[in-house]
Amino acid sequence: MSIVQEFKSYVQRMKQLEEAASVIAWDMRTGAPKKGIPQRSNVFGMLVGDVFKMSTSEEMGRFLTELSAEGVFETLDAVTQASVKERAKEYERSKKIPADKYEAFVVLCSNAESEWETARANNDFDSFRPSLEKIVATLREFVELWGYEATKYDTLLDQYEPGLTVAKLDAIFGPLRERTVALLKAIKEKQQPDAAFLDQNFPKQEQREFSEFILGQLGYDFEAGRLDESAHPFATGLNPGDVRITTRFAPRDMQMALFGTIHECGHAMYEQNIAADLVGTFLATGTSMGIHESQSRFWENMIGRSTEFWARYYEDLKARFPEQFAGVSIESFYKAVNTVEPSLIRVEADELTYNLHIMIRYEIEKGLINGEIEVADLPQIWEQKMEDYLGIKPDSHANGVLQDIHWSGGAFGYFPSYSLGNIYAAQLEHALRQEIPTYRDQVAQGDFTQIRNWLIEKIYRHGKTLEPKEIMLAATGEEINSEYLIQYLETKYKGIYGL
Amino acid sequence: MSIVQEFKSYVQRMKQLEEAASVIAWDMRTGAPKKGIPQRSNVFGMLVGDVFKMSTSEEMGRFLTELSAEGVFETLDAVTQASVKERAKEYERSKKIPADKYEAFVVLCSNAESEWETARANNDFDSFRPSLEKIVATLREFVELWGYEATKYDTLLDQYEPGLTVAKLDAIFGPLRERTVALLKAIKEKQQPDAAFLDQNFPKQEQREFSEFILGQLGYDFEAGRLDESAHPFATGLNPGDVRITTRFAPRDMQMALFGTIHECGHAMYEQNIAADLVGTFLATGTSMGIHESQSRFWENMIGRSTEFWARYYEDLKARFPEQFAGVSIESFYKAVNTVEPSLIRVEADELTYNLHIMIRYEIEKGLINGEIEVADLPQIWEQKMEDYLGIKPDSHANGVLQDIHWSGGAFGYFPSYSLGNIYAAQLEHALRQEIPTYRDQVAQGDFTQIRNWLIEKIYRHGKTLEPKEIMLAATGEEINSEYLIQYLETKYKGIYGL
Repeated sequence: MSIVQEFKSYVQRMKQLEEAASVIAWDMRTGAPKKGIPQRSNVFGMLVGDVFKMSTSEEMGRFLTELSAEGVFETLDAVTQASVKERAKEYERSKKIPADKYEAFVVLCSNAESEWETARANNDFDSFRPSLEKIVATLREFVELWGYEATKYDTLLDQYEPGLTVAKLDAIFGPLRERTVALLKAIKEKQQPDAAFLDQNFPKQEQREFSEFILGQLGYDFEAGRLDESAHPFATGLNPGDVRITTRFAPRDMQMALFGTIHECGHAMYEQNIAADLVGTFLATGTSMGIHESQSRFWENMIGRSTEFWARYYEDLKARFPEQFAGVSIESFYKAVNTVEPSLIRVEADELTYNLHIMIRYEIEKGLINGEIEVADLPQIWEQKMEDYLGIKPDSHANGVLQDIHWSGGAFGYFPSYSLGNIYAAQLEHALRQEIPTYRDQVAQGDFTQIRNWLIEKIYRHGKTLEPKEIMLAATGEEINSEYLIQYLETKYKGIYGL
Repeated sequence: MSIVQEFKSYVQRMKQLEEAASVIAWDMRTGAPKKGIPQRSNVFGMLVGDVFKMSTSEEMGRFLTELSAEGVFETLDAVTQASVKERAKEYERSKKIPADKYEAFVVLCSNAESEWETARANNDFDSFRPSLEKIVATLREFVELWGYEATKYDTLLDQYEPGLTVAKLDAIFGPLRERTVALLKAIKEKQQPDAAFLDQNFPKQEQREFSEFILGQLGYDFEAGRLDESAHPFATGLNPGDVRITTRFAPRDMQMALFGTIHECGHAMYEQNIAADLVGTFLATGTSMGIHESQSRFWENMIGRSTEFWARYYEDLKARFPEQFAGVSIESFYKAVNTVEPSLIRVEADELTYNLHIMIRYEIEKGLINGEIEVADLPQIWEQKMEDYLGIKPDSHANGVLQDIHWSGGAFGYFPSYSLGNIYAAQLEHALRQEIPTYRDQVAQGDFTQIRNWLIEKIYRHGKTLEPKEIMLAATGEEINSEYLIQYLETKYKGIYGL
C-alpha cells in the first residue's frame, strides 16, 4: 500500500469507529434501557478514545509529515489535500496540550456538568463558581499553549468557526445588537397579536403526522433518515445515507415539535447532501457550527415561519386540527407564531430576541477568556446586560446565569455560532433571492426543489472542504455581513407589529 | 499491569467491540434507513473483524499459553479460569483453519446465501446445489483439521452444543421420533378442535399492549430491555442490562406476536439474569444454543400454552378482544392454540410436529458431513422423510429442502439445538415440579417469582461458566434424557385429543 492509501484507510477506520460511537449515542438518547447504560458508556468511551488516540498517534504524525511535504502534497487529489489539512489542524491542536493536562480537563468538565446540574436545581451559583473558575483558568492556559494573535478568545472562536475573530465579531454583532434593541423597544409599545388559540390540546399522533408530512415536503429523505423522540431534540449525521432527527411533542404547544422538526430538518438536509466522495474522511460533515446553524435557521424561520409557507400549508394544518384553528385566519396564525416577547430563557426565545441572549453570552465569554472580567462577577453582569438589552431581570440564577449547560462542559466559543447562523442565513437568503427571484413564489407552491438544489450546490455538497468564509464568498460575493439579518428582521417585524 | 489484568482488559475490549457491533446489528434489523446500510455494513464488518483478529492474535496466544501453564492457572479466580478455557477453545478452533481457507469459506457462504434466496424464489434446487456441495466439502475438510473422534459430524455438533455427539443424539432422538410419529398418527384419526375464532381481525395496537402486559407479568425487565418490531423476531443480549426483543404483528393471527414475544422473553430473561461478575468476558452469554432454546420453549410452550396460564390470563385477553372471543370458552381457546397439524414449513409447525422437522434436518446433516449421502440426493431424501414422519409431501422445493437459510450460511450442526431445547425444557420442568410441587398453582396465580428464581439459580446466572451437561446434572440429577419430553407431549396431546 502506498502511504496515501495507508493514510486513507487509517482515516476511514477512525470515521468508522466514530460512526459506531454515533449510533450508540443516538441509541442512548432515544430509548436505550437505563440498566444497560453504565456498560454502554464504557463501549462509547472506548470508541471515542480510540478515535482520539488515532488522531494524535505517531502514525498519524508520520502520515501528515510525509503527505504535507513539498513535492508530495501537490500530487494529491483535492479531497485528500483537504483531508490532510483538516487532520493536520486537529493533530497540531491536540498535540500542543500535554496528555495529563487534557485528561484533567476532561475530568474537570465531567464533574462540573453534574455540579452545574445541582447548582441550577438549587439556584446556587456559588457552588458552581469554583469549577467554572478552574475551567476558565484552564482554557486560558490552553490558549497560551495553542497560541493566539490579537486576543485569546480568538483561538476558541476559531475552533467552532474557522477564521472568525473578536474584531470581526464585534463589527458584526455591534450594529445587530443596537438595532435589535431599538426595534424591540418599539415593539414593546405595540399590542401583542392574539395567540390564545395556540394554547389548546394538540394530540401527539396528529402532531407527529403533520411534522412528518412537512419534513417530506421540505425534502428530508426518509430513506436516509428517521424521526424519533428525545428529551433534547437533535440531528445526527451517522453517514450521508443515515441522518436522523429527533423531536419532542408537547400536547399544548404545537410549535415546539413543528418548528423543532423543521429546524432539525435543516441540519439534516445539509448532512444528507454531502458529496459521496467525502465519505470516509472527516470532511463529510458541516463546515462549521455557524454554517450548520444557518441551515436550521433558514428552514425554520425564513421558510417555516413565513407568510408564503403558510399560504401553502395552513389549510393542511387546519385539516389536521380543525377545531383548534376554527375561525383563525392565516394572518392571525402567522402573527401568533412570530410573536416577539423578551424572556429569560434563551432556548425559548423568539427569532428577534434570541440574538440578544447570544450577545450577553458572547460578551461574558470574551471578557472571561481575555481576562477582563472574573467568574465571581457573572451574576451581576448577567443581570445588567439582561436589563440593558432585553429590559427584563432574571428572577433567579437558574433562569439567569446558570441556565445553559455549555460552560460546564468547557464549550467556550460555541455560543456565537447560534447568531452567526441567523446572520449567514439572512445573507444567503438575500443571495438566493437575487439568483432565483421567484423563490418566494415557489415556497408558496410548496416547491422547494430549486431552493434545495441551490443550497446543495453552494453549501451542502462541499462538506468541510471549504471554510465558512469561502462558502459565503462564493455563494454571496462577500464575507459575513449582519446587515442582511438586520434588514430582514426590521422588515418582517415592522410589518407584523405595524411600525 | 499483571498478565492477568492485561488478559482481562484485552478480553473486555473484545466484548466492547462486540457490543458495539450488536447495537448496530439490532439497529439494522429494527429500522435503520436503507440508504445508510452499505456504509454501516462496513462499520459492522470492521468491528466484527477486529474481534476475530483479537481472538486469534499472537497476543491472545501468549495470554493463553502463560495463563494456562501449570502453577499459574490454579492461582486464577474461577471466572478467569473459565474465561481462559473458553478463549482457548475458540483460539484453537480458529487457529487450526488457515486464514485463506477460512476467508474463502466466508465468501462462499456469503454468495451461497444470495444464491439460496434466488433458488428458493425460483423453486430451483439445482442452481443452489453446486454451492451447497462446496460448503459440505469445505466443512468435511475443516473437521479433518479440527479433528474428530467417532464421527465428523460430532465436531460440528460440539460447536453449538458442547459435549454432544451423534451417538448421544441418536439415543435421545430415536425414541422421541418413534413415539411422536405414533402419537401423530393417532391424532390424525381424531377431529380437530374448532379454531375458526382465531381467524379474525386483531388490531395491532391491542396486540402490542397485551404482549407488553404479558412480558411484564412473566418478569421481563423493561428497564433492561425494550420491545421493537422486525421482519424476523429475535432477542439480543447487548449486555445483561440491555436485552432487547423484537416481534412482528399479524393482524389476523394473534398467536404470532403473543407466543413469539413469550418465546423471545425466555431467551431474554436468561440474558438479563447473567451474573454481573461475568460482564466483560465471553462467559456473559447463554451456555449453548440448546440450553438457550430450552428457555424460550419452556416459557412459550410449558407456561404460555398451558391451561394454568390461561386460567389466570384468559379474562385479560377477552377484555382486550371482547368481540373476537365472545362465547369462546377457555377450553376451546386452549385447544385451539394447541392444535396439532402436520405442515410443510418448520417455522410454522406446532409444538409436537416441530421435532419431526428437526429430525429430518439432523439425519440429512449427519449423512452429508459423514459422507453417507450426497447433496444431489437431498430432494428425494427430504420427500421420503416428510412422508415417513409427517405423512405429507412437499409441494415444491421452496416449501421443502430449500425452506431454511441455515445450510447456505454453513451452519451445519445448529438444527438439533431446537429439539434439544424442547428436551431440556421438559426435563427441567420435571425437576422444577419435584422441587416446587406447587409451581403450576403459582402459574395459575400469575406468580412467576419462584419459577424465575429457580431458573436463575440453576441456569441463568451461570452464563457460559458451566457446560450444558453440568447444568443439567446439577439441575435435574441426570444427563439429557428425552423421556420427559415424550411423557409431557403424550400427556398433553392425549388430553387435548381425547386419546
